[in-house]
Amino acid sequence: MNYISSESNELIKKMKKMVHSSRTCRKEGQTVAEGIHLAKELANHPELIRAVILRKDALENQEVSEVVSVLPNDKKKFYEVPASVYNVICPVEQSVGICCLIDIPKPAEIKPQEDWVFMDDVQDPGNVGTIIRSALASDVKNVALSVNSAYPWAPKALRAGMGIHFLVNIHTGIELSELKRKTEDVCLVADARGGESLFNDDWGYSANKTIWVFGNEGQGVSREALTLADKVLLIPLNPAVESLNVAMAASVCLFEQKRRRLSKK
Amino acid sequence: MNYISSESNELIKKMKKMVHSSRTCRKEGQTVAEGIHLAKELANHPELIRAVILRKDALENQEVSEVVSVLPNDKKKFYEVPASVYNVICPVEQSVGICCLIDIPKPAEIKPQEDWVFMDDVQDPGNVGTIIRSALASDVKNVALSVNSAYPWAPKALRAGMGIHFLVNIHTGIELSELKRKTEDVCLVADARGGESLFNDDWGYSANKTIWVFGNEGQGVSREALTLADKVLLIPLNPAVESLNVAMAASVCLFEQKRRRLSKK
Repeated sequence: MNYISSESNELIKKMKKMVHSSRTCRKEGQTVAEGIHLAKELANHPELIRAVILRKDALENQEVSEVVSVLPNDKKKFYEVPASVYNVICPVEQSVGICCLIDIPKPAEIKPQEDWVFMDDVQDPGNVGTIIRSALASDVKNVALSVNSAYPWAPKALRAGMGIHFLVNIHTGIELSELKRKTEDVCLVADARGGESLFNDDWGYSANKTIWVFGNEGQGVSREALTLADKVLLIPLNPAVESLNVAMAASVCLFEQKRRRLSKK
Repeated sequence: MNYISSESNELIKKMKKMVHSSRTCRKEGQTVAEGIHLAKELANHPELIRAVILRKDALENQEVSEVVSVLPNDKKKFYEVPASVYNVICPVEQSVGICCLIDIPKPAEIKPQEDWVFMDDVQDPGNVGTIIRSALASDVKNVALSVNSAYPWAPKALRAGMGIHFLVNIHTGIELSELKRKTEDVCLVADARGGESLFNDDWGYSANKTIWVFGNEGQGVSREALTLADKVLLIPLNPAVESLNVAMAASVCLFEQKRRRLSKK
């Protein structure tokens, strides 16, 4: 175990920068993973871990000491820091006291005929992380994001995914047209402004591999996405409610796809 | 328009306390509603508005000046404050600069045979607000919360509902057993640990009025809820994902109910 007592330590300065700037994460190819869920999942991906930062009191917590016991036993990578230093590198207000500096994994090649979710300028890191979690929960193992979406590996988005990021193939800064060309999938676009009901019998496509497109929190999906859509689908809402939160809408659509596929088996 | 320049003004002190303590909101029967969405919806409920606080620059924003023009034109209720004062009563980091002090509306009586959502110790105010929005979106107009759930009228929960709270009948601090007795509804409990698949054909009940029960973020639903359940239902998840966020799970269940009802029409 190493000890760091000052905020001006180079490692701490670097992690602090990452917590406040997703651009730094993107540039460095590294990010900060906070909390028990992420640490547990990282035990299955030891090659990604560059440093494990523990707040001075953290090992008193049984969950933390358990997860530390399954992380790779390389003492050079472990650092104990006082709470004052921990707080400057911690992306959330309340933390059990464990943060890892990790390499962002490289995405796998885009192959034809696999299911995808495409986020079309989804801005909120919490929504991005939650949609990644709902995607895999519904058996969609590939997620792509437009260049103006929140960065999925930013500490807040990573935390919202609760460890699921490491199990999903994530492509950033990609255009929907390129994704559609490479996958040859059916492109389904969710749009609160109009389209066929998600619950109609005949939108079909449960036998096809699909790209599901979810848009920006304020503006919805882009014109380009509507042009590329094979089908535009609408979740029927009570007239008093203008729209669902994008992560809710994505969950409803993705599990409707899952339901249709299960019912065909 | 009135002017307040100091944090030690009584109105500001009261609102500051409400932003930090849902207990204060509950005790006073009042809360703080921040942002454009809530102000727009409050224009339809002018009797609830006690004070409208505008940050010094807020009226330069066209959306704010539009919404102010439809709020009740009672100059005694409008206050302009400098940014330094506004920030102490604003429940979010970024705000367009409009906050209202409002009375919390009284819930309507619980009648037999209406649809409900029951939150069983849901802790996160953002989840509570989002579930209220998804409930009404799926046509469920009544929401009840256990005494240990987050307070739905706390500023953060109110903001997450985006104005939907004022259109929903919200009961707090109620027991599921009492709700079930008064409504005589079918009680459907969502449980990530087990139960019948949500997508099975035969869970039925689309013809009945229902109480949907969603549980705590960490522990899930309580034993009492499982005892009162007419049916325990499980969203089938990819084995790599332990659970969905409770607001996602609620949206998937509530829209599956809506889909079944639409298909019966």
